[in-house]
Amino acid sequence: MLEYTKAIPIPRSERDVLLAFAVRIAEQAGAATLPFFRAEVAVENKRDDGRFDPVTEADRAAERIFRDALRAEYPAHGVFGEEFGHEPGNGLTWVIDPIDGTRAFMTGMLHWGQLLALFDGEKPVLGVMYQPFTGETFYGDGESAWYRRGTGGAARRLRTRRGVALDEAMLTTTSPGLFRGHGERAAFDRLERRVRLSKYGGDCYIYAMLAMGYVDVATDAGLQPYDIQALVPIIRGAGGVITTADGGEPSLGGFIVAAGSEALHRAALEALAVR
Amino acid sequence: MLEYTKAIPIPRSERDVLLAFAVRIAEQAGAATLPFFRAEVAVENKRDDGRFDPVTEADRAAERIFRDALRAEYPAHGVFGEEFGHEPGNGLTWVIDPIDGTRAFMTGMLHWGQLLALFDGEKPVLGVMYQPFTGETFYGDGESAWYRRGTGGAARRLRTRRGVALDEAMLTTTSPGLFRGHGERAAFDRLERRVRLSKYGGDCYIYAMLAMGYVDVATDAGLQPYDIQALVPIIRGAGGVITTADGGEPSLGGFIVAAGSEALHRAALEALAVR
Repeated sequence: MLEYTKAIPIPRSERDVLLAFAVRIAEQAGAATLPFFRAEVAVENKRDDGRFDPVTEADRAAERIFRDALRAEYPAHGVFGEEFGHEPGNGLTWVIDPIDGTRAFMTGMLHWGQLLALFDGEKPVLGVMYQPFTGETFYGDGESAWYRRGTGGAARRLRTRRGVALDEAMLTTTSPGLFRGHGERAAFDRLERRVRLSKYGGDCYIYAMLAMGYVDVATDAGLQPYDIQALVPIIRGAGGVITTADGGEPSLGGFIVAAGSEALHRAALEALAVR
Repeated sequence: MLEYTKAIPIPRSERDVLLAFAVRIAEQAGAATLPFFRAEVAVENKRDDGRFDPVTEADRAAERIFRDALRAEYPAHGVFGEEFGHEPGNGLTWVIDPIDGTRAFMTGMLHWGQLLALFDGEKPVLGVMYQPFTGETFYGDGESAWYRRGTGGAARRLRTRRGVALDEAMLTTTSPGLFRGHGERAAFDRLERRVRLSKYGGDCYIYAMLAMGYVDVATDAGLQPYDIQALVPIIRGAGGVITTADGGEPSLGGFIVAAGSEALHRAALEALAVR
């Protein structure tokens, strides 16, 4: 499994090259995924505990494309992906969720995406989310974040919405059913009672829309590192704050809380009061 | 308010003309809506009871386009819309939801659409759902249903998934929070425990995906006539069944249950056991 180690420094110019590469291969993986969307797909059960967790051929096809491209271009780097596990490397690790929002994908809905991040041992230094059906790419490096539609489209900067108090906030979660750990559901319910409006469903899209300024607080529990890493540099690059519910680094997943501003994030953590 | 009266017969050839017209004006209204999507939109509170119900400029702009086009082409017909109420006519009534999924629209998410139906006094005889951002049009006349992407795209037939037992079914609802009436939430929870997998969020998209064969059961409560009418001829045209939770005609809204086949619909109503 992925662990925190000492951060490997990456010069700015190299990070820009890595981010452009990540965007390119996410879009390539998307081209491989799209034929499976709203088609007859094989779904199998990869868990033994009886909980249903769909694995589609699209998931595997996309992760193979990511891994082949990464191995060819950066053979020294490690790779950690949802479908094919962890291959350790030189301390820099690419983190792949070939399809985040598998349930959405299975049902023909639109809120899913391909996620790719580069983890430096402490945090993801860059992240990409790509939705091939809509042609939307969200990407960031922790300092800036961008959106573009269509591979030839013009990129625009992503910025979170600022100056929103908790009682004015739009809250999103993929599902209240994710809050299964000790005290998690009660914490979520406390937060939900404090906001103006809440909306369920969305997986990676709720974090993308937070980065774009249309969602104020996004939270999910039980996340894996590959569910969240790509979104962290996008949210931070857009001016948002993302941590675990107890204020820690979110890179290994778990109970995650993102907000458009530092003040709102603090208010959300206080409302959750998980600590 | 809209009421059930005696059905006004519409010859098949006229219905085809009306459906083509409805598709055309839904797409025109979409062009007017799109500039407001992910833009700064005015949101006001149209309820007095303190519950938040967003009304965007997009909603009003789109409904005006629908009404102007309907008045110009079919001045004798009635119009019933979410934003500007009911203008009775000759017994045939156009039913408009200028933006279904306003919360999705507000948050920049993708599961919203413009809905238009023609109600003959007993049932909607045709319906259109259009999502201008993705360019997706779903439309049907109760006997057949079609999908196309892009106004120049080729239409393909919509067909529900058949032969799915309740314990294999994919269940969707816009939000469990909609089940607020007497016994409704307990009924929903009973149904949810019987299915293989459930997914929250989606508004009109969950019914569109049922018609397309990727969702097996879709249910929401507290719906208005304009939330559901356009989707009824699409679901029926794709081979699905849609009624209220007590098995009645769904055209005036309320607690609605749709399923991909008659057998599955019967099993879903039994699990809900609202009767």
